Amino acid sequence: MKVSDLGEFGLIEHLKAKFSLAEVGDDTACVELADLKILLTCDTLLEGRHFLPFYPISTVGWKAVSATVSDIIANGGKPLYLLVSLLLPDVELKKVDELYEGMTKACEFYGTKIVGGNVVKAEKLGLDLFAVGQAERFVGRSSAKAGDGVFVSGTLGDSLAGLELLLMERKNYEDFELRLIERHLRPTARIDYLRHISKYANASMDISDGLASDIRHMAKRSGLRFNIFKEKLPLSKELYEFAKKHGKDPYAYALKGGEDYQLLFTHPPERMNPFLDMSQIGYVQEGEGVFVDNKPLEEYGFDHFRS
Amino acid sequence: MKVSDLGEFGLIEHLKAKFSLAEVGDDTACVELADLKILLTCDTLLEGRHFLPFYPISTVGWKAVSATVSDIIANGGKPLYLLVSLLLPDVELKKVDELYEGMTKACEFYGTKIVGGNVVKAEKLGLDLFAVGQAERFVGRSSAKAGDGVFVSGTLGDSLAGLELLLMERKNYEDFELRLIERHLRPTARIDYLRHISKYANASMDISDGLASDIRHMAKRSGLRFNIFKEKLPLSKELYEFAKKHGKDPYAYALKGGEDYQLLFTHPPERMNPFLDMSQIGYVQEGEGVFVDNKPLEEYGFDHFRS
Repeated sequence: MKVSDLGEFGLIEHLKAKFSLAEVGDDTACVELADLKILLTCDTLLEGRHFLPFYPISTVGWKAVSATVSDIIANGGKPLYLLVSLLLPDVELKKVDELYEGMTKACEFYGTKIVGGNVVKAEKLGLDLFAVGQAERFVGRSSAKAGDGVFVSGTLGDSLAGLELLLMERKNYEDFELRLIERHLRPTARIDYLRHISKYANASMDISDGLASDIRHMAKRSGLRFNIFKEKLPLSKELYEFAKKHGKDPYAYALKGGEDYQLLFTHPPERMNPFLDMSQIGYVQEGEGVFVDNKPLEEYGFDHFRS
Repeated sequence: MKVSDLGEFGLIEHLKAKFSLAEVGDDTACVELADLKILLTCDTLLEGRHFLPFYPISTVGWKAVSATVSDIIANGGKPLYLLVSLLLPDVELKKVDELYEGMTKACEFYGTKIVGGNVVKAEKLGLDLFAVGQAERFVGRSSAKAGDGVFVSGTLGDSLAGLELLLMERKNYEDFELRLIERHLRPTARIDYLRHISKYANASMDISDGLASDIRHMAKRSGLRFNIFKEKLPLSKELYEFAKKHGKDPYAYALKGGEDYQLLFTHPPERMNPFLDMSQIGYVQEGEGVFVDNKPLEEYGFDHFRS
């Protein structure tokens, strides 16, 4: 049997079971040291797979930091320290400087800092970031409660639309298209939600693989049924414009699009905070599975959404 | 200017200065959380660069864990938790299992555990390990004191000899050769020295790049002169046999050979502990540079030692 027969999630499940790997399951591991809750996570970006050589390299640095701290924040932690492990071909020093500029700007923004790391020669550029955070309360994906509302931050699907625009490699883009591209290249981890998540959320994770994929994990791990409603999915006006111009279904982008780094979380509906850009997209009840407009998510499938 | 014009150490110095990267300098970063001293480090092994496809893959797992915890131990910390970031081509699942078997065996040995990580598809196998440890006192490389003795644990040069034997890809090896190969493939981080280092060492680091390279860093960072003596370098009888059989200078291996993961540390000579396999190889005095038998290390050079 090959790794591809299992897939990424299958492989992780297999390794967890076979080697009794401890708390593996959330994107962040929570360990206790003395009476501190320490969150640990890592994230990898490889050239050719997660970014392409023509991307502005400073945005790759920004995104690597954002993706990594996003996991800490989603689990209710304040990101504190980063280590940067760099796979580095023999590029111009200027390129490494720009990469670090992107990373250090992001670190300033999130109030974290790079305290170490290492550099290894490689054929292609790659970044592996390790983040350490601290939480008063660890908020994982497996602790949603029946009766909770299901919430997301911000808008969904923008990053995927931005990626598709970027890959067109056009000479000219309209303003709304540039904003979508920007959301793909320079996503912002929702550190402004940290207090809300830490204080009120029963379950939380970031949406990095797309809502459809991530909410299935949360429902399964929580052992509950998640009902969401297509019309409730928050869409940006840029995504509407994009969908209209290119004849696409914007809800498909909101459901399947990854790398928005928005938050998916649950808590009692009355904890809704009108000062944050959060939307209630559904609710949690006893049972299992994810339902969109009362139909199993699987029946929607991704193909249904492809236009 | 390209990255290769600076070299690895030059690049790290450049980035440290340009981006005011905090405590970067030791292989481990020490951060304080509440009143805890937390040590953070990461280490990368790439196929084709740090190991070859024909190596038993479980030894690669063992070595990755050993190399990573070695940095924590060298700085006086107890390794507690590991994250494993895997770059994974579509290999047989069995190979991944064997890799994890090697890692989990090493984790048991060092009393640490894997609590998380991630998996990314890649063309070549690679491991990036991130370790978290805890120290009562951080023992870095920059705090040697004049009057200290210079000590190393175990024997030096075995790993390089083992590597050269391994690369011969012979069908048959003598017993002493197999032991050298074993030391290259399955090095042991000196966790048995943890209490000694934590309690008595003024400066400490692990010897991963070779004594000549690592001791220069310690002398420079400590701002002191290190005098060592060739005849004091601890050699294994296996290395003697290897040197005799192949007409090599065993001291060259002890000075330039990397990946032994022995410890280099300083403290007052009277702190010598006869129950540990430590050797005093020299002493520290006011001044600068590293001297071997009273000649600057540079004059020895590596070429001098090549036979």
